[in-house]
Amino acid sequence: MFTERVRDLAHVGSVELFTPTPDESRAFFVDLMGMSESGRRGESVYLHAWDDYERFTLKLTARDRAGIGRTYVRAASPAALDRRAAEIPGRWVEDELGLGPIYLCQDPDGHDIGLYWETERFVAPKPPALKNQADRFPGRGANVRRLDHVNYLSADTPACGRFLAERLRARPTEQIVLDDGVPSAVWYTVSDKSYDLVYTNDWTGSNGRLHHVALATDTREDILRAADVCLENGIHIETGPHKHAIQQTFFLYVYEPGGNRIELCNAGARLVLAPDWEVISWTAAERAKGQAWGLKTIESFHTHGTPPATR
Amino acid sequence: MFTERVRDLAHVGSVELFTPTPDESRAFFVDLMGMSESGRRGESVYLHAWDDYERFTLKLTARDRAGIGRTYVRAASPAALDRRAAEIPGRWVEDELGLGPIYLCQDPDGHDIGLYWETERFVAPKPPALKNQADRFPGRGANVRRLDHVNYLSADTPACGRFLAERLRARPTEQIVLDDGVPSAVWYTVSDKSYDLVYTNDWTGSNGRLHHVALATDTREDILRAADVCLENGIHIETGPHKHAIQQTFFLYVYEPGGNRIELCNAGARLVLAPDWEVISWTAAERAKGQAWGLKTIESFHTHGTPPATR
Amino acid sequence: MFTERVRDLAHVGSVELFTPTPDESRAFFVDLMGMSESGRRGESVYLHAWDDYERFTLKLTARDRAGIGRTYVRAASPAALDRRAAEIPGRWVEDELGLGPIYLCQDPDGHDIGLYWETERFVAPKPPALKNQADRFPGRGANVRRLDHVNYLSADTPACGRFLAERLRARPTEQIVLDDGVPSAVWYTVSDKSYDLVYTNDWTGSNGRLHHVALATDTREDILRAADVCLENGIHIETGPHKHAIQQTFFLYVYEPGGNRIELCNAGARLVLAPDWEVISWTAAERAKGQAWGLKTIESFHTHGTPPATR
Amino acid sequence: MFTERVRDLAHVGSVELFTPTPDESRAFFVDLMGMSESGRRGESVYLHAWDDYERFTLKLTARDRAGIGRTYVRAASPAALDRRAAEIPGRWVEDELGLGPIYLCQDPDGHDIGLYWETERFVAPKPPALKNQADRFPGRGANVRRLDHVNYLSADTPACGRFLAERLRARPTEQIVLDDGVPSAVWYTVSDKSYDLVYTNDWTGSNGRLHHVALATDTREDILRAADVCLENGIHIETGPHKHAIQQTFFLYVYEPGGNRIELCNAGARLVLAPDWEVISWTAAERAKGQAWGLKTIESFHTHGTPPATR
Repeated sequence: MFTERVRDLAHVGSVELFTPTPDESRAFFVDLMGMSESGRRGESVYLHAWDDYERFTLKLTARDRAGIGRTYVRAASPAALDRRAAEIPGRWVEDELGLGPIYLCQDPDGHDIGLYWETERFVAPKPPALKNQADRFPGRGANVRRLDHVNYLSADTPACGRFLAERLRARPTEQIVLDDGVPSAVWYTVSDKSYDLVYTNDWTGSNGRLHHVALATDTREDILRAADVCLENGIHIETGPHKHAIQQTFFLYVYEPGGNRIELCNAGARLVLAPDWEVISWTAAERAKGQAWGLKTIESFHTHGTPPATR
Repeated sequence: MFTERVRDLAHVGSVELFTPTPDESRAFFVDLMGMSESGRRGESVYLHAWDDYERFTLKLTARDRAGIGRTYVRAASPAALDRRAAEIPGRWVEDELGLGPIYLCQDPDGHDIGLYWETERFVAPKPPALKNQADRFPGRGANVRRLDHVNYLSADTPACGRFLAERLRARPTEQIVLDDGVPSAVWYTVSDKSYDLVYTNDWTGSNGRLHHVALATDTREDILRAADVCLENGIHIETGPHKHAIQQTFFLYVYEPGGNRIELCNAGARLVLAPDWEVISWTAAERAKGQAWGLKTIESFHTHGTPPATR
Repeated sequence: MFTERVRDLAHVGSVELFTPTPDESRAFFVDLMGMSESGRRGESVYLHAWDDYERFTLKLTARDRAGIGRTYVRAASPAALDRRAAEIPGRWVEDELGLGPIYLCQDPDGHDIGLYWETERFVAPKPPALKNQADRFPGRGANVRRLDHVNYLSADTPACGRFLAERLRARPTEQIVLDDGVPSAVWYTVSDKSYDLVYTNDWTGSNGRLHHVALATDTREDILRAADVCLENGIHIETGPHKHAIQQTFFLYVYEPGGNRIELCNAGARLVLAPDWEVISWTAAERAKGQAWGLKTIESFHTHGTPPATR
Repeated sequence: MFTERVRDLAHVGSVELFTPTPDESRAFFVDLMGMSESGRRGESVYLHAWDDYERFTLKLTARDRAGIGRTYVRAASPAALDRRAAEIPGRWVEDELGLGPIYLCQDPDGHDIGLYWETERFVAPKPPALKNQADRFPGRGANVRRLDHVNYLSADTPACGRFLAERLRARPTEQIVLDDGVPSAVWYTVSDKSYDLVYTNDWTGSNGRLHHVALATDTREDILRAADVCLENGIHIETGPHKHAIQQTFFLYVYEPGGNRIELCNAGARLVLAPDWEVISWTAAERAKGQAWGLKTIESFHTHGTPPATR
């Protein structure tokens, strides 16, 4: 029986990354990914992808260790924000550049999530030639268009999935279910994209870690070119370019200089438009086949996360 | 002041096209566009794009003249369908292959729109290699992935825009506003795509005509290849490939053998994720500049529609 | 001191492949690679790539084991053919469809090479839309444009390299030189392409075997799509898509149903135009780094050849 | 009867462009086309495309009017250079950065052509990640790989064609022949590319003018992205992106700030490998059909040249 689900969240807005090498990380995102700097405050520099309508896409904060700070998710309306706040333990803050009141909460694994409605529009330093885009087209490196998704590591993937479904009203689209029947990775969407927020088992049992943040490009060719750009500039390419079997995303995984894993991704014209989409489950055996075109999943994909695990 | 808007419609589901040359039209969509036949009934043949989860994407019906029949739009839930039915004049029918009860109504220009919830899932004749897609990847011609949007001609564009906004709860994203302040073309979305339904002035003053139906490809390269495929097979290319200034879609316009204009389109990673997106208005002067990279809008773009105008 | 070198060979013309599964192999090349059948004789079927000006590109011959038959290389002129024949041990035959007199010789590893001048022009069954191409654009699968190169296995790579340089007047462009100073793989060109004929050490010590035959596509996107086509049709993808460090070719390696390794390759706009190009040597250590973007060279790349080694 | 033709010329090496706006022109080629500065002397700045093995690809010289200076063409050997010098009226000079002795001559229309053998190898300021390319991959704008061809205007196209054939030993591959039987445009190659040097009728009857210089990209996607880059930076796009019927090149024509027409071009995997290729003739009627996918040839294509015509 299908249950109507009011969409209370519009989309993932921005993410904060910690980096022990703030200058090198900034250079990576600006020079190689094609982003621009759109603000500075304290130990943080704010970065903007050219088609993001909001003030910033990534917030880079200097820290002794890499990792993920807050994930900001925009509500679908002021009322929707209030509905979410009423159902989730948390607190109101108003402490972020370009954002109004933020309802700050945590997923069961301890990742900070900030829900908000009020947001400052990005104002282009020089107006773009076409007025229906936020900033000028950079024509530089990977030319990333927008934030795509966040993939967290979690010591308790099923609990985090329930949090997304019940608290954030997100919809599951795909999952890996181990032979014991327990999901080890879950993909959820709050939009028409096939996924926005992902949890993967943290085999170290640590909490609050990041697997990767993904930036979307317009074409697969952008990603092939980005591979050349990373090769030329000494950026570690972990794996790819290749196509995921799960979600079918065309991908490239690299480590930004601070150590965080960054995915460049392209979904083509894929959307999950069916309101009653049934979650697709992959078994451990299917997963073992590797990626869509046969690439074996690289070992570090199961071990590397930020910050580094301490146990 | 932002008004919360419940999303009652999920997405455009399928479109019926009339064609005086049904065999040639079918061959165009199957052999050159990469669709497959998924049903036949009476004078109609049903065609399916490889990533459509529903039974059919296009319905081709033999008629003496080209044109558009019903546009089917899927509701977001059974309750949403009832809400729409309660607000729009129309009637319930249950007469379509693969669809349950349909609430049939008309826009102010007389185009038939059928709202529905119950739908039959497409069953692949041979299962695809990846279980998260509806059918096997064709590797043929344009390899169109799914239906993208419908662009109607209308003798009263503003009235049709109000119908979309007020009756279908669609959101306007871009528009052309002539010097008299009246919109001559309006782009609306019911989803996170930047548009799903479009109305353009029918300068002949006719009613119920079609400007074009658009099919989405995964890449711009698919569209370049489609241009070669159309060239080689004697399909009339009206204009393109090029990039629209409005909505920035990469496009190719061709006439299928029955005479209906078909767009092949690619939006890259563009989505309208902002719930409070403000409609972008283009003036007649801006419109006169042509397309994004300078291509002049071809004259037939303002005159050709189906069926041919009788006045 | 630069020595003038008269170009006596124009280009690799066609290759004969042996296959124990002739029907399946033919279907692979026609349905998935986009080639067409252009002749039959005895146990052989002839296949044509759409931009090849000659009668055939591949000759598929039914045999109990996979492997490579003759490689046909077109001379630059009748006089050039006579010059080569005068310098290389061999014999004249005239026994091939579409070819005139052939000077048949062998490289030091026993691969058959046929040099010829007279050749039959391909006549398109239906004329293509543009008269400057040989056949209609298929719009099917990988749409391979032409033969690109042949990579032989050899028990004596240095001797085969000397044969190419001294007997065929080919130019070396890149090579792998092991720590003992002996080349283990050599890339030679007879044209402005960066390579046409390649020898790689056959670690089994066998003679006359094939590593792969490569077909050229116009774009890297063709190769990504080909990967989807192979995935969907159960063709074994050995490795790729990725980019070679050596020669920088974008590649996909698959096994055609008969067992022969086929490369789909794209060189972009890369050519070796310098007449005094100096061969580039890669060390074993450099080679061990894997491909351009970090993909490890797959183990079977060093072991699989056709026919299967018997020792 | 086929006549053996010794290849005395290896490839077009570089071109000098005059510009009244040297700083803006340099910025165009460096920032938007992805070239780098590789030298300065007097009123000239030298620019290098990343895969050019020679010291420079373009020489930009400040002048009051746009136009073309010398075209440098590298001989296939020292002996070949002497053979050409012995047959063509001209004189030896040694006055160019990075080049040894140059045999300077003129085509019948007065364009300067310099033949040379000795050339300085480009030395990358920072070594590229892959040692088989000349310079680091820029990842900027159009990322042009190398010079592709030069298209001159001429008051006497047939005479210029004879000069290419008889004096430079170039091969004609395609031509436009008007109804009077006289060629109005001719495409010649000195290499395996389908063309290197082109003459088009100068309808103003002027001499020594330039139609365009073409830079090669690796992919069609590079050209689509370049169109966005030009749009964003106020560069005049004259026509394209589209595909030529003649030679089938995927193209974009822009005016660099100095006024010279620049083509970005991609040939895919197209080469003319047949030594006995028969020239393809297009009639005025065929030409009138426009480009491959139907784009009408823009009027300025027949009128704009540099320097501007004075009669």
